Amino acid sequence: MTDVGIIGGTGYTGVELLRILAGHPGVRLKLITSRGEAGTAVADFFPSLRGFIDLEFSEPASAGLIDCDVVFSATPNGVAMEYARELLDAGVRLIDIAADFRIKDRQVWEHWYGMEHQCPELLAESVYGLPELNRAHIRTARLVANPGCYPTAVILGLAPLLEARCVDTGTLIADAKSGVSGAGRSAKIGNLLAEAGDSLKAYAVPGHRHTPEIQQALTEVMGEDVAVTFVPHLTPMIRGIHATIYARAVGLSAEKLQGIFEKRYHAEPFVDVMPPGRHPDTRSVRGSNVCRIAVHQPGGGDQLIVLSVIDNLVKGAAGQAVQNMNIMLGLDETMGLQMPPLLP
Amino acid sequence: MTDVGIIGGTGYTGVELLRILAGHPGVRLKLITSRGEAGTAVADFFPSLRGFIDLEFSEPASAGLIDCDVVFSATPNGVAMEYARELLDAGVRLIDIAADFRIKDRQVWEHWYGMEHQCPELLAESVYGLPELNRAHIRTARLVANPGCYPTAVILGLAPLLEARCVDTGTLIADAKSGVSGAGRSAKIGNLLAEAGDSLKAYAVPGHRHTPEIQQALTEVMGEDVAVTFVPHLTPMIRGIHATIYARAVGLSAEKLQGIFEKRYHAEPFVDVMPPGRHPDTRSVRGSNVCRIAVHQPGGGDQLIVLSVIDNLVKGAAGQAVQNMNIMLGLDETMGLQMPPLLP
Amino acid sequence: MTDVGIIGGTGYTGVELLRILAGHPGVRLKLITSRGEAGTAVADFFPSLRGFIDLEFSEPASAGLIDCDVVFSATPNGVAMEYARELLDAGVRLIDIAADFRIKDRQVWEHWYGMEHQCPELLAESVYGLPELNRAHIRTARLVANPGCYPTAVILGLAPLLEARCVDTGTLIADAKSGVSGAGRSAKIGNLLAEAGDSLKAYAVPGHRHTPEIQQALTEVMGEDVAVTFVPHLTPMIRGIHATIYARAVGLSAEKLQGIFEKRYHAEPFVDVMPPGRHPDTRSVRGSNVCRIAVHQPGGGDQLIVLSVIDNLVKGAAGQAVQNMNIMLGLDETMGLQMPPLLP
Amino acid sequence: MTDVGIIGGTGYTGVELLRILAGHPGVRLKLITSRGEAGTAVADFFPSLRGFIDLEFSEPASAGLIDCDVVFSATPNGVAMEYARELLDAGVRLIDIAADFRIKDRQVWEHWYGMEHQCPELLAESVYGLPELNRAHIRTARLVANPGCYPTAVILGLAPLLEARCVDTGTLIADAKSGVSGAGRSAKIGNLLAEAGDSLKAYAVPGHRHTPEIQQALTEVMGEDVAVTFVPHLTPMIRGIHATIYARAVGLSAEKLQGIFEKRYHAEPFVDVMPPGRHPDTRSVRGSNVCRIAVHQPGGGDQLIVLSVIDNLVKGAAGQAVQNMNIMLGLDETMGLQMPPLLP
Repeated sequence: MTDVGIIGGTGYTGVELLRILAGHPGVRLKLITSRGEAGTAVADFFPSLRGFIDLEFSEPASAGLIDCDVVFSATPNGVAMEYARELLDAGVRLIDIAADFRIKDRQVWEHWYGMEHQCPELLAESVYGLPELNRAHIRTARLVANPGCYPTAVILGLAPLLEARCVDTGTLIADAKSGVSGAGRSAKIGNLLAEAGDSLKAYAVPGHRHTPEIQQALTEVMGEDVAVTFVPHLTPMIRGIHATIYARAVGLSAEKLQGIFEKRYHAEPFVDVMPPGRHPDTRSVRGSNVCRIAVHQPGGGDQLIVLSVIDNLVKGAAGQAVQNMNIMLGLDETMGLQMPPLLP
Repeated sequence: MTDVGIIGGTGYTGVELLRILAGHPGVRLKLITSRGEAGTAVADFFPSLRGFIDLEFSEPASAGLIDCDVVFSATPNGVAMEYARELLDAGVRLIDIAADFRIKDRQVWEHWYGMEHQCPELLAESVYGLPELNRAHIRTARLVANPGCYPTAVILGLAPLLEARCVDTGTLIADAKSGVSGAGRSAKIGNLLAEAGDSLKAYAVPGHRHTPEIQQALTEVMGEDVAVTFVPHLTPMIRGIHATIYARAVGLSAEKLQGIFEKRYHAEPFVDVMPPGRHPDTRSVRGSNVCRIAVHQPGGGDQLIVLSVIDNLVKGAAGQAVQNMNIMLGLDETMGLQMPPLLP
Repeated sequence: MTDVGIIGGTGYTGVELLRILAGHPGVRLKLITSRGEAGTAVADFFPSLRGFIDLEFSEPASAGLIDCDVVFSATPNGVAMEYARELLDAGVRLIDIAADFRIKDRQVWEHWYGMEHQCPELLAESVYGLPELNRAHIRTARLVANPGCYPTAVILGLAPLLEARCVDTGTLIADAKSGVSGAGRSAKIGNLLAEAGDSLKAYAVPGHRHTPEIQQALTEVMGEDVAVTFVPHLTPMIRGIHATIYARAVGLSAEKLQGIFEKRYHAEPFVDVMPPGRHPDTRSVRGSNVCRIAVHQPGGGDQLIVLSVIDNLVKGAAGQAVQNMNIMLGLDETMGLQMPPLLP
Repeated sequence: MTDVGIIGGTGYTGVELLRILAGHPGVRLKLITSRGEAGTAVADFFPSLRGFIDLEFSEPASAGLIDCDVVFSATPNGVAMEYARELLDAGVRLIDIAADFRIKDRQVWEHWYGMEHQCPELLAESVYGLPELNRAHIRTARLVANPGCYPTAVILGLAPLLEARCVDTGTLIADAKSGVSGAGRSAKIGNLLAEAGDSLKAYAVPGHRHTPEIQQALTEVMGEDVAVTFVPHLTPMIRGIHATIYARAVGLSAEKLQGIFEKRYHAEPFVDVMPPGRHPDTRSVRGSNVCRIAVHQPGGGDQLIVLSVIDNLVKGAAGQAVQNMNIMLGLDETMGLQMPPLLP
């Protein structure tokens, strides 16, 4: 049996990994680390996991990470880069769910993340873990950079249009709305229910870390520079991202537009293109690894609108990480990930 | 393979049954009926089930219900009693998730439900489907009355105390708080987000249909009349019931109290007694079939407080129905029901 | 004292009018009609108004509407046009908070609202009641068409840019997010807390009634045809609209952009332009008549982003209606409208 | 004009005081202190107050507190007791909205609040600021201890029954449900929207600080020891407390019960007793200083149920503080407090 470890399991990505791995028949969860909670039973910390997870949190140093086959890093940004070299040298395959290895250009990374990169020599090797774009490279990767939540929704919504070279790449806009779990399980006043509840706001309009990540992926898709105006919003829900994507195309029919998406994602187990005229809601993917997409062309004009929804903690984090693990291990890509969304 | 049918699948109990049965390895979902949506693909009606359920809703009359081995009735009150006789005569086993067969006394039922009972001759035969009390009878039942959501939380919280004969049965109080999905998927102004959101109220304080159901079950446990003051509240959440139960006991130690519950539910797969001092939150059972309980005795006094939480749509409806089905079919009782709660 | 009447007071616009008028020192609320609730005390129907409103709902036919000085129509679309002629002939001034008189082109109106207009002869006379654009005409109007909620937020966010003729009018996008009270106090499944809670979706992407309203107003501002791509979203909050507006400009500095808005709205009592770099949240205007705006130009590029928030029931409906009434009556424009937002 | 100061204005009680005082015609808000935000404009910190409050936060030491006529302390527990002596000596009247002066018994206070009291000599003098019980003493008080939010709802719901000496004081239960703003504007993980949203839990069942406060007040009402079982719950809403109160009485008719409450609160401007059979919802008092009460006696039995709702930030904190101030200053008790609730 394949042994799996998790670094930093007390956040939302951690508890979501635990939920998914608890029902995964192909791997064995061997350990989960937490500096702050070492010695605490996981099921005491997350009572929802009583009866499902029997482990205690352990100290990272002594946990036995290097004896795992695969390690997920579910820590804040800047932690995985401290472990990566040692784990890879020990033959462990690493999936970083934070952002340490997402940006290829070290200077861009350091600008947006405000710290010095600890192992820039791995940036070239790391594979951006969006299976729908990079499945072949993920298969053999030692180090996978799991995509950000917003980038997952936006890139999956835009890639077919760019691959089809049918839109103006100068006017791409992604207006994205996220639930508050995207901000993580950390004590910030702005994310209190009394602050973020029953209200809505844009944030980081002058610039957000996910913009360079989106642009890097789309530039690779397109083979030329792609710029996207990206505006994130904080909304009063727990899970879910809804990206409303605006692109302009000339002479595209509604049928052709629909066809581009259906054809592109026909064989993808976790991207669902809805029939024409539909509007996906975020709850339709709650708790599942699906990215659900609908495309519109109001009045048959030049303006295309792509609606792309994911659960930020599943396809936007832990679920996609398990999907990547499945690919890396040669397992069925959907193993452990075929749970229907929770609705209502 | 066992064939299963669902009558009336467009409500919340219906979609929750579909979610659970989609992953149940022991039965085959053969049909689902809806008068209003006959001919509509289930996955068009509930996009969350795209890729999971391939059926269309069918007309009840022609659906082939009598060819099923087990039928769930997920309709409003008053419908199952019209089908029950015909189905049982055809050898179909019926699990009614509505209230038609919960109350043994026909007059009491007709008083609270405001209609004439269509097949009172089945009331005596029907088994109240709370496995923790009635497992043996459920096993052989032809007709199971699946408990109400509030009664499930309240009865599981009170039964151990009554069985242990350690509380005053004259002062039992159950103050229960429910999410709005308990009111069903029907268009009522009072359940609009703009009405029920960010607000809380008690309702039906003069009397609620679930009071006689609770009292009947507890009276059977106790072997003598038990009266419970039951006050339900509507709270601004989607799923979840939290019952705060007050009982008085003289001379009970905290250890003994805890022991009564732990011993009573030790072997139960779906009742979790927390360690002393804990407070279960409803999200800790969201999407799961677990009833999670904690017991308190503030200051070591006579007042006992039991906190009992369930997901009203799972242990309070569809999940418990599948648990009953598993028992009736001789399957592992937990089959298809071992999904961890969705948190956050 | 000026006598005021309300037609159709059982919806959200009605109760919000009542809340505002209860504290308005310049007018007397004389009557409020409701076909369905005639004879019911307003304070029985809306317990929040106990102690504030002493009226009963009355039958529209016998209520004495023609004896009022000003009448608000807070009904669904299609009702005000049945009363308008009679009221105006009696010398009553009418403020329609629904959409009957917003669109000047009868055919456009009939296309979007799906009914025949009952008094098209008044369309030319009616004044679009956005004080920031039409104050002078409102002052003398007999018939004011109170703007829609989305149009209020979008037009106020775009008008300064169009007046300054500094943006490309071919690429205007308004991505708008609304709380569910915008859908009115009517029993629709899609607006239940269990449906719309903890979820988010776009709707009416192929076309929404507010698009022609927005375009008509902006075309008048600009003196030439203006087209806007408008995408509304339903969000899990009660009140509030957040419009995120995208426009392109060449050679505009951040300082100039900020200056355009500050100068334009300097004297406006109900439009607040925030300092550079801010992000308004909808709760910052909850319960108040303010439209709060911030402008951004990420990276100093061509893409301008305007963030515009209102309370859809106040500046987007009842508050703006009272503002219009104040103007029409020659009262201080802010009378009865100077309540601070409710936060948190 | 009377000069008013606020100590510690960056929390929810602070911003609510500011909202109320902004529209209060009888006093002048002279200063507001904050150690952490000294020098920041209040309207920058709370954008909802742009245009309403022109002050900056100032350092407590140099703010000029002793030149005020009345000072509100809106700080965490343990701060007001450091200032109280100095302010009183300077002739300033102090209203502490925290808990420093609520409990008369120093040892009880120190037990529950976990710190040494800094000026126990003022405990005897301080007046518990519940106007419905202590109006005469408040009028002349130098030091008012503003009641806690839960105690306000519970005491107002129980006092008439105790005064009428018609209930068994041995079995009083208050099951209370609060919105999260009651926990204050401080960064705690448990109050994040992603934690407290869409969920409900009891907390502090073994013992809560408000229990001795409730018992002290009711004991004073009764003239003998009164014990109350008090269980608070955290609910997913922003504002509002709903107390469901259980008491037992023998031989009381429903009419007499209703009469006891109506008579008791007939002249109270901020307590509203609903007609028989009603259920108040918390939103019916949102943003207002009203405590709304309904009483029930299910089946005419011995069990009485009182439903008592308040807005925890208004009648449960800032509004009641202003009500106390009005009484102390000889102003109309309702001055600045007559705003209708915000609904929906």
